[in-house]
Amino acid sequence: MHRYEIRLSGSGGQGIIMAGIILAEAAGIYDGKYVCQTQSYGPEARGGASKAEVVISDEEIDYPKAVKPDLLLAMNQKSCDMYLFDLKPSGTLIVDSSLVKQLPTTRAFTLPFTRIARETLGKELVANIVALGALVELTDVVAPGSLEAAVLARIPPGTEDLNRKALEAGIEAARQFLAQRTESMIDADSLDE
Amino acid sequence: MHRYEIRLSGSGGQGIIMAGIILAEAAGIYDGKYVCQTQSYGPEARGGASKAEVVISDEEIDYPKAVKPDLLLAMNQKSCDMYLFDLKPSGTLIVDSSLVKQLPTTRAFTLPFTRIARETLGKELVANIVALGALVELTDVVAPGSLEAAVLARIPPGTEDLNRKALEAGIEAARQFLAQRTESMIDADSLDE
Repeated sequence: MHRYEIRLSGSGGQGIIMAGIILAEAAGIYDGKYVCQTQSYGPEARGGASKAEVVISDEEIDYPKAVKPDLLLAMNQKSCDMYLFDLKPSGTLIVDSSLVKQLPTTRAFTLPFTRIARETLGKELVANIVALGALVELTDVVAPGSLEAAVLARIPPGTEDLNRKALEAGIEAARQFLAQRTESMIDADSLDE
Repeated sequence: MHRYEIRLSGSGGQGIIMAGIILAEAAGIYDGKYVCQTQSYGPEARGGASKAEVVISDEEIDYPKAVKPDLLLAMNQKSCDMYLFDLKPSGTLIVDSSLVKQLPTTRAFTLPFTRIARETLGKELVANIVALGALVELTDVVAPGSLEAAVLARIPPGTEDLNRKALEAGIEAARQFLAQRTESMIDADSLDE
């Protein structure tokens, strides 16, 4: 992996920056990669937008910010609209379909992180951890074990169980999404015949 | 303030990265400055060293990392040794005197953040918040009210009281340090006569 750029985005209170730190520590401390993790605040910070970037590389990193992200996670509509066009043409888009209703592309992973956190786990606050579980299942950007270790090292004591379940729910949702997509691809193939 | 570079450093578990985020949010969200906050992980991350950088400016920030810090906070001996010589010649050095015993300069603010957290507040974990209180009292890098707002927005619910007390203890320790220094300067002046 020469250089892989990730941008996580959403609104303040969605745990975007914590997700960025956890992902960076999974890659940097547990996977042993070079990682730069950044957040920038400007006039948009006062508008409640939240953005965290993680650049992962096998080599030392010169410029620490994401220039043309390989992966964009958009946890709300505004951040999807704002950052979609920064994404590399071949890049991966993952959106929280509970909050992103208008998608200008069909080439996206759409998973309801916030709804899963609220309905399955009873705690909307862990939508960021659900999203991380799914993101790693979909992209292999860090080892799943590294992600779990990084999550457990960062969360408040006593919430280990909840956060482990949040990770698993994210992984499971990603697997279901991939399985359904494969099915619909097979259906489309049958139509071709 | 054209560009002010801060590096916070210590060991993993001292809350260095959380301190970086809080300081960045105080400046970016509450003081309305442009801010970049970064952490980099490389081989040293596996050694347990922890470093967070905050660059604050009135203008948009081109390069987000600290090149020649104006301010270094060193929360342990290793980080003091490692980063001291990056500091700008006129820069400010603040060290946790509970853990930094060898100082190659007398031009430093030496305050026992960890001891204050343990003995006064009964919780070593808030040494980072004690340090932030002192840092802001000593440097005016963000408004004290902005720091408090940023702390309260980031800490686990139910710990508001502890963290407010930690901030106050840091501010008070900084004031005492300054007062003692002024006293000893006055003593030195009397000797000159």
